Amino acid sequence: MRVERSLLEANNREAARLRAQLEEAEILALNLVSSPGAGKTTLLVRTVERLAKEIETGVIEGDQQTSRDADRIRQAGANAVQINTGKGCHLEAPSVAHGLAELALPPGSVLFVENVGNLVCPALFDLGERHKVVVLSVAEGDDKPLKYPHMFRAADLMIVNKIDLLPFVDFDLEACLENARQVHPGIEMIALSATTGEGLEGWLEWVSSARRRSRASERSGAPPA
Amino acid sequence: MRVERSLLEANNREAARLRAQLEEAEILALNLVSSPGAGKTTLLVRTVERLAKEIETGVIEGDQQTSRDADRIRQAGANAVQINTGKGCHLEAPSVAHGLAELALPPGSVLFVENVGNLVCPALFDLGERHKVVVLSVAEGDDKPLKYPHMFRAADLMIVNKIDLLPFVDFDLEACLENARQVHPGIEMIALSATTGEGLEGWLEWVSSARRRSRASERSGAPPA
Repeated sequence: MRVERSLLEANNREAARLRAQLEEAEILALNLVSSPGAGKTTLLVRTVERLAKEIETGVIEGDQQTSRDADRIRQAGANAVQINTGKGCHLEAPSVAHGLAELALPPGSVLFVENVGNLVCPALFDLGERHKVVVLSVAEGDDKPLKYPHMFRAADLMIVNKIDLLPFVDFDLEACLENARQVHPGIEMIALSATTGEGLEGWLEWVSSARRRSRASERSGAPPA
Repeated sequence: MRVERSLLEANNREAARLRAQLEEAEILALNLVSSPGAGKTTLLVRTVERLAKEIETGVIEGDQQTSRDADRIRQAGANAVQINTGKGCHLEAPSVAHGLAELALPPGSVLFVENVGNLVCPALFDLGERHKVVVLSVAEGDDKPLKYPHMFRAADLMIVNKIDLLPFVDFDLEACLENARQVHPGIEMIALSATTGEGLEGWLEWVSSARRRSRASERSGAPPA
């Protein structure tokens, strides 16, 4: 994507401000990115349902059009704001800042940002998140980290979703991890099926642990809770 | 996507020039767009293999990185050029013009352009093609035309791919067509599995028929062959 440098710079300034605000408010922000239809919304529905008893969550939903995703999240009992980007191919930090204000989350919350389904452009735009999490469906193929390296380089965690389809598609989990580590040696991988719930525990633990780490780092010198 | 107006205008000028050149050379150009991993390359491999006896084909492959797709096409016996876009999220008309020059296709050929896997940005960029063809995998869900309306509005044909996975996913073919027609009443649909070959005939006939129509329209007043 060719974007004006001034647009990227303005976004990055707002993202830095937002990151400081989130830290001050003790809110962990995760930016979920993927191709269209990789299963981000289903994953988030399961996640907010399961975390509901212990952690307050809020969701900012980015889509070109429709409010379907925010509706699904709200039905699952979480606070959600929909942002329609129109012809836009990614969320930008100022929209996320507005969404955050609307959600009015208490300290200790987790904010999930579901970006527009796009494995390219959202890699370039910092939304003030602590981590980008890339979701890849096994139906897409295990070569995607090599073909879309910028996104897998930007993400700290790769969720391989729809593992219930593994028997029916040509996808090798180990090859996928190897491909991802080729472009980003430090990336973690969690394989799960948001539909059947298999492997979901690992992801919920990852979120809880990221939340503990972020709160600990905000309290200077305090050990992880 | 926010792009500089001058960039879009330069692309459109080059696309118009390219379109005239393709018509003059009696080459039918199809621009294949989809999410990452929807199966464009597998479809093209099957297509060029099957068309080989009757129609000369050439393929321009767009990817952020790797030459895997062009390698696969060449193994299938067709002429292919790979264009790596780096951080770019779509092909642009000048790259396609260079690719076309390299392919040196004879009159009556079909040029397939496989765009970068992205259901958003390639909708805005005219590559001089006669038709955009959007490929949607059933694993992505039947709501995608509503969520990414610009792409489905830009495409004349929607190929619903991976129908061999229909028993294992939540996807309704009729609902998908209804959603697509809601944003683009004139869009056609062909359902197939590039992997098993089911439904491939309909697509091959569509290509042949589009080629006949385009050659007929180039010969002023001549009826379709």
